Amino acid sequence: MRFARLGPVGAETPVVLDGDTAYDLSALTSDLDGAFLASGGTRLAAGALAAGELPVLADAARARVGAPVARPGAVICVGMNYGAHAAESGSAPPEVPILFLKTPNTVVGPYDDVAIPPGSERTDWEVELGIVIGQPASYLDSPERAREHIAGFVVANDVSERQYQLVDSGGQWSKGKCAPGFNPVGPWLVTPDEVDHTALRLRSWVNGEARQDSLTSDMIFGVDHLVWYISQYAALEPGDLIMTGTPEGVALSGRFPYLAPGDVVELEIDGLGRQRQTFTETRRSRA
Amino acid sequence: MRFARLGPVGAETPVVLDGDTAYDLSALTSDLDGAFLASGGTRLAAGALAAGELPVLADAARARVGAPVARPGAVICVGMNYGAHAAESGSAPPEVPILFLKTPNTVVGPYDDVAIPPGSERTDWEVELGIVIGQPASYLDSPERAREHIAGFVVANDVSERQYQLVDSGGQWSKGKCAPGFNPVGPWLVTPDEVDHTALRLRSWVNGEARQDSLTSDMIFGVDHLVWYISQYAALEPGDLIMTGTPEGVALSGRFPYLAPGDVVELEIDGLGRQRQTFTETRRSRA
Repeated sequence: MRFARLGPVGAETPVVLDGDTAYDLSALTSDLDGAFLASGGTRLAAGALAAGELPVLADAARARVGAPVARPGAVICVGMNYGAHAAESGSAPPEVPILFLKTPNTVVGPYDDVAIPPGSERTDWEVELGIVIGQPASYLDSPERAREHIAGFVVANDVSERQYQLVDSGGQWSKGKCAPGFNPVGPWLVTPDEVDHTALRLRSWVNGEARQDSLTSDMIFGVDHLVWYISQYAALEPGDLIMTGTPEGVALSGRFPYLAPGDVVELEIDGLGRQRQTFTETRRSRA
Repeated sequence: MRFARLGPVGAETPVVLDGDTAYDLSALTSDLDGAFLASGGTRLAAGALAAGELPVLADAARARVGAPVARPGAVICVGMNYGAHAAESGSAPPEVPILFLKTPNTVVGPYDDVAIPPGSERTDWEVELGIVIGQPASYLDSPERAREHIAGFVVANDVSERQYQLVDSGGQWSKGKCAPGFNPVGPWLVTPDEVDHTALRLRSWVNGEARQDSLTSDMIFGVDHLVWYISQYAALEPGDLIMTGTPEGVALSGRFPYLAPGDVVELEIDGLGRQRQTFTETRRSRA
């Protein structure tokens, strides 16, 4: 099953997709959020769809696409989880997963514009496989138990400002990971039965030129290991998002220029859909 | 004004305090959350209290005390913000604020037990002045604009597992900052007019023995500077919590033992109240 949230920011309608048709889930849930996922909502939605109980959402093709999960309680990121990316970043492959966080309000839709922060000259892209948690997970016994706690997978862009992350940070990466709009997610939340998450091709482009092109099988620590491991350090909740790390091919490598206003970034993971963001000049919101 | 949330976990009643009497705010708001703070709720509550419109909450003295703000959207922490603590941690004083994050679900009440993680031998305390955001703050023009965005102040314990934070982390501190219950907050949310946040004594004790004893005037970066600075890197939202760093006197210094089951930690900041937590053996919740 593929799920999405369609409509204006803050007023998205939850839908389940069948081919190109979006079926409105509003009668089942107000949103694709932790409560929906924890209640086994994806199975209920599948049943309602099969029974022909869901109305088609009108004008779905023209609607904005939001992130396919409502704002997470936490966005937990894994650093340096592809050996070639660790190398291009000047790091040795880690012996255990390296964890850092993004503020959850960075999550935006997959086609929303992303504002480059004021004065930033080192804004970078990172295509990543995202895991959406479906059931609470704390101190799991083993990686084998992880799958019961996964609602599905998403494409995510872990947008990063390298000057903030690596130079102005005192070493704590989050400073370069939390600017407004720095976490495009979607277009779809795809249930685990739809994809083999151990062998997905993930790619990115800037202005149509290829950047990243790797396989999730290249990850140092796989999906099940990560969910189990992270549950030893934080209590995962339904709706939380785990970002599993990015492969080689980012600007930090020195092989490509950083992003400038007007640049278009595209990201795709097989079976999970394709994102497209235009990076824009800073619009200072003096709130 | 002093605000609190009284009652069982997840069902706290919002109150405003006048001396020892708790007045029920349920008619004004369902919770002390971002929406309440953003709407100028603290002023509305003051008016309703002065007008005698608020009922006394029965049995308030026997109620559990929750964190005085509902779960934040983000908990943003400042590292090494007291020179003597930086020194005891083996670090030079930072030139700019160092930022890291806790998962927001670490926030618990000020008297709730805190479980030491499985196998942990290096669980540590950190008394901190917490800033609760009242109005959205993104790219603020100057530190002078910060005060308009502050709802109030709280006592907070940035509980830390040093092995996870510093040894098993690959350098990213959040791994040791996110265990369940690792952020006791409260007992009160105190509005800025009630205290001089630039000169508050903050102290901690373990089993009645003094540990930390410093002044917020020792902070390297003050409250207004921090709110302005953080707003350049993340969009602060009403209800968000900023932890301003801890002074010297933690176990990491080597001067005191780490926490063991049965230890009682107390933390106090002048005018903001006093916390008391019993640290317990791990209760594995095999969710």
